[in-house]
Amino acid sequence: MNSKVTKDEIDEILSNYDSKNLATGHICSHSTLQNTYGSRQEGLRTLGFCTSDRIKVYRSFPLASPDILLQVKTFKEILESKWQKRMKEENVIMIPTGSVVEYVGPENLEEKFYVPLFGNRRTLEWERDRNKQRQWLEKAGLKMPREYGDPSEIDGKVFVKLSGAKGGSGFFTASSEKEYYSKLNEGIRRGVISEKEPKTTIQEFISGIRYYVHYFYSSFETYEEDGANVGDGRVELLSMDRRIEPIDESYRGLPDVPEEFFDYTVTGNEPLVIRESLLRFLIKYGVDTVNTSIELFSPGIQGPFCLETIYHPDSGFTVFEVSARIVAGTNLYPHGSPYSGYIFGEPMSTGRRIAREIKRGIEEKQLNKIIF
Amino acid sequence: MNSKVTKDEIDEILSNYDSKNLATGHICSHSTLQNTYGSRQEGLRTLGFCTSDRIKVYRSFPLASPDILLQVKTFKEILESKWQKRMKEENVIMIPTGSVVEYVGPENLEEKFYVPLFGNRRTLEWERDRNKQRQWLEKAGLKMPREYGDPSEIDGKVFVKLSGAKGGSGFFTASSEKEYYSKLNEGIRRGVISEKEPKTTIQEFISGIRYYVHYFYSSFETYEEDGANVGDGRVELLSMDRRIEPIDESYRGLPDVPEEFFDYTVTGNEPLVIRESLLRFLIKYGVDTVNTSIELFSPGIQGPFCLETIYHPDSGFTVFEVSARIVAGTNLYPHGSPYSGYIFGEPMSTGRRIAREIKRGIEEKQLNKIIF
Amino acid sequence: MNSKVTKDEIDEILSNYDSKNLATGHICSHSTLQNTYGSRQEGLRTLGFCTSDRIKVYRSFPLASPDILLQVKTFKEILESKWQKRMKEENVIMIPTGSVVEYVGPENLEEKFYVPLFGNRRTLEWERDRNKQRQWLEKAGLKMPREYGDPSEIDGKVFVKLSGAKGGSGFFTASSEKEYYSKLNEGIRRGVISEKEPKTTIQEFISGIRYYVHYFYSSFETYEEDGANVGDGRVELLSMDRRIEPIDESYRGLPDVPEEFFDYTVTGNEPLVIRESLLRFLIKYGVDTVNTSIELFSPGIQGPFCLETIYHPDSGFTVFEVSARIVAGTNLYPHGSPYSGYIFGEPMSTGRRIAREIKRGIEEKQLNKIIF
Repeated sequence: MNSKVTKDEIDEILSNYDSKNLATGHICSHSTLQNTYGSRQEGLRTLGFCTSDRIKVYRSFPLASPDILLQVKTFKEILESKWQKRMKEENVIMIPTGSVVEYVGPENLEEKFYVPLFGNRRTLEWERDRNKQRQWLEKAGLKMPREYGDPSEIDGKVFVKLSGAKGGSGFFTASSEKEYYSKLNEGIRRGVISEKEPKTTIQEFISGIRYYVHYFYSSFETYEEDGANVGDGRVELLSMDRRIEPIDESYRGLPDVPEEFFDYTVTGNEPLVIRESLLRFLIKYGVDTVNTSIELFSPGIQGPFCLETIYHPDSGFTVFEVSARIVAGTNLYPHGSPYSGYIFGEPMSTGRRIAREIKRGIEEKQLNKIIF
Repeated sequence: MNSKVTKDEIDEILSNYDSKNLATGHICSHSTLQNTYGSRQEGLRTLGFCTSDRIKVYRSFPLASPDILLQVKTFKEILESKWQKRMKEENVIMIPTGSVVEYVGPENLEEKFYVPLFGNRRTLEWERDRNKQRQWLEKAGLKMPREYGDPSEIDGKVFVKLSGAKGGSGFFTASSEKEYYSKLNEGIRRGVISEKEPKTTIQEFISGIRYYVHYFYSSFETYEEDGANVGDGRVELLSMDRRIEPIDESYRGLPDVPEEFFDYTVTGNEPLVIRESLLRFLIKYGVDTVNTSIELFSPGIQGPFCLETIYHPDSGFTVFEVSARIVAGTNLYPHGSPYSGYIFGEPMSTGRRIAREIKRGIEEKQLNKIIF
Repeated sequence: MNSKVTKDEIDEILSNYDSKNLATGHICSHSTLQNTYGSRQEGLRTLGFCTSDRIKVYRSFPLASPDILLQVKTFKEILESKWQKRMKEENVIMIPTGSVVEYVGPENLEEKFYVPLFGNRRTLEWERDRNKQRQWLEKAGLKMPREYGDPSEIDGKVFVKLSGAKGGSGFFTASSEKEYYSKLNEGIRRGVISEKEPKTTIQEFISGIRYYVHYFYSSFETYEEDGANVGDGRVELLSMDRRIEPIDESYRGLPDVPEEFFDYTVTGNEPLVIRESLLRFLIKYGVDTVNTSIELFSPGIQGPFCLETIYHPDSGFTVFEVSARIVAGTNLYPHGSPYSGYIFGEPMSTGRRIAREIKRGIEEKQLNKIIF
């Protein structure tokens, strides 16, 4: 096990930055159009790493195209010392996204990436380790789906994920041990499952409507006394979305659907708002998630995060995951959401919110508070 | 039966108001973020009653947080004379929402609430009484789903609602008398239905796409000659939405869905637009609904209302309900909708529209025209 | 076969226009609110033909109401010489929409309509002829659904369309020749299919999520070197939508749905965004579609077009149709989309984009480049 990049090391690098000439750093994927556009709105320079097949995309959205666009063969290349050096020369603060984590690897970010990251780098381990994530959310008092240790324990409808499966494929549902094995064997027979003895995660099936709630924890802003303040900062509910997965058009394939293995890969997002009386739960969950993160890995989560929930009138909210960074669902709202307007009175996306937080850090001479 | 609050009584109260210092009144639920934000945009003060568990919500959306926030144990408390007195001292015009009607009770609003309400208080009885509502809409020429008096009459697919059922639960579909009793008994056996001999409402099942259309009847504005003018005012089509109910993710639970009792509780809303050629029907329905309301309970409906429709290419529009006040679907559009921009050329939500109508009433010295 | 209107004839008409006093022309349907509003934003006058039943609609959206509104009995009437004369007197450039094509008829537009059309009139034949359209898209390298010549060839799930069927009705799915004939006969028996020996189109059934992608090809703007430039111009990805068809609420009618013949008539549209990493395919498809159109019918497609795609993680994108003009899905975005803001930094709809392109044509004294 390699040693981890320390906060002191990053603070040292940051102390050599020209704070009047910062740039946000991006890999050209996930939510980079939004992030780059947002940085520009706030007057920050932008630097993006891009593979050759994507350059045309970013150059075709001129106001969201990075000021400095560096071509790489793979995104993982940003770990190379020449690129790390370049980023430091350009005073880059890297904005972590799902793609940064996926392509570069969370361990690599923790151990080998000596460039300031927006937010708290320690969050990475609490997000990628499913046990730690569960510990975090349950300690925060959030209801999560029950997990089953063994197929023999199945006593209701469950949602089964193949451990080796990539993305959103290789899921199925079952309501008994018998159905579990029957579907598993059918999957092996049909080649959907490649392994002979596949490992699975078995989770309680939760029915209801999915709401993916986009929060932002700011270290520099507070509400008046009664608002969702935590520590020195505040929790903002910026927007929400619903993910669109192939199963979401499965009904168009009726009557064949029940026989198939569904696919849950996220292909896009759609906007929505939630019943206003339910916001009291969502605000509470946001506050509790941040509070618990401070206890578990001080100074806790910083900047954007997302609680991935299912709501049903009978059972309330179940939270099945936290994303401790900007999620792609925020791409719906580069010009603000129905909610962010109530806080800012101007078009405020999550990407712009990140850039504004960095600017506030500069103004307050406390950039190190939100960088690791 | 108690005597009803009269228009003269409200006019008398209103005549004592300081029209330069009006406030809109709210209970913190339903669409109050939008309404409060809209009042502020139009320069009106705001007063909101809030339960302790919701204060953090409203204080965390600072631009939509009421100027005066009064804590209550239950929303029904606003009937108490101290609160009615306070509202009158603050020159409050209460904005009725679904939550105001639900928590305070329509009869209580009609009989015990001596605070000016935006709109026509008489609308309440025409909305809550299902027979009156049907009389209203049918007289307006709108096609409604057929209602069946007895299960033995079932001659096609029907939608069954348990009379005692709360919110959106306790619904099922059936295609014959036999299926009706079979499902009813299954519901009793499974405990979904608690009563032994439940009463039900049986309605024709209408297939198609739901469009919830948000209108506004203005008493102070008119279009040029050929527009949707009614009486001294005009009908505006401000926006539309689709409600999101647990059944809307039912396909994700296949193949178990058909066995279940569906839940139709509204959990949120999503935006959409309708085929432009269908607007001619929607404009007509809006005009006819207002016109008929004037005939039935002069001066008729005022301010926002919603027609809840299902459209199918084969059968056209069926209207299954009218909400004679702001609906929560408008929460999608605090910064305007695809339609409202064509009327106002600036971000216009239904909440802001209400506030603007009040301001126009002040300017015209005819506030009493839109208040009861 | 009549002779076609020639480019020289249109150029001659255009040369007599007062370019300081142009008007865009519309028939009041489809996307005319957006187009009229957009023309007004860009300072162009507007002229609309309207049937009596729709006048109230357009007069009730004052900022989207045509400056000159001419009443007609049917939209096809615009072919009459008095109307063609009037349009030329008003310096009208007609904006083609799906309704213009449907109501006036593509052949009539090609042969009898001596008024300048925005875009390339030759596009019409490449769009209406399904073989030519397939030739175009396949030459552009887009993957299209396989077509089956005969029911006996069915070797997987297929989507069957009755040739005589109007709009979106008369579709069904089948997975074998046997099922094909069984459903066809059932349809005849039930009266859904009126002909005795109906002709059908049999297409591979593609599962996945539908994304309708709204592009604009500009002849006057270019990106910097690496952007999606084609010829002298550039491809812009302005927005995307998903169409809403009766089948999209079919799950609400469970368990009866599988027995029914689905209806795919478009009733409206909903907004969405796509996973950012998929944009590289969409930009490529847009570029290739335009490039190929230049090869096939120089100067190729001009102005707005839409690729109607289905995306599945396993099979990527399948393109099932191109609409070579503005599509109604753009009605979601009269004030801009999540994507168009990245290009323009101001509210830019497709309708406004068209008007701006015309204005650029005037400035560049090259209006003839984008008019035929």
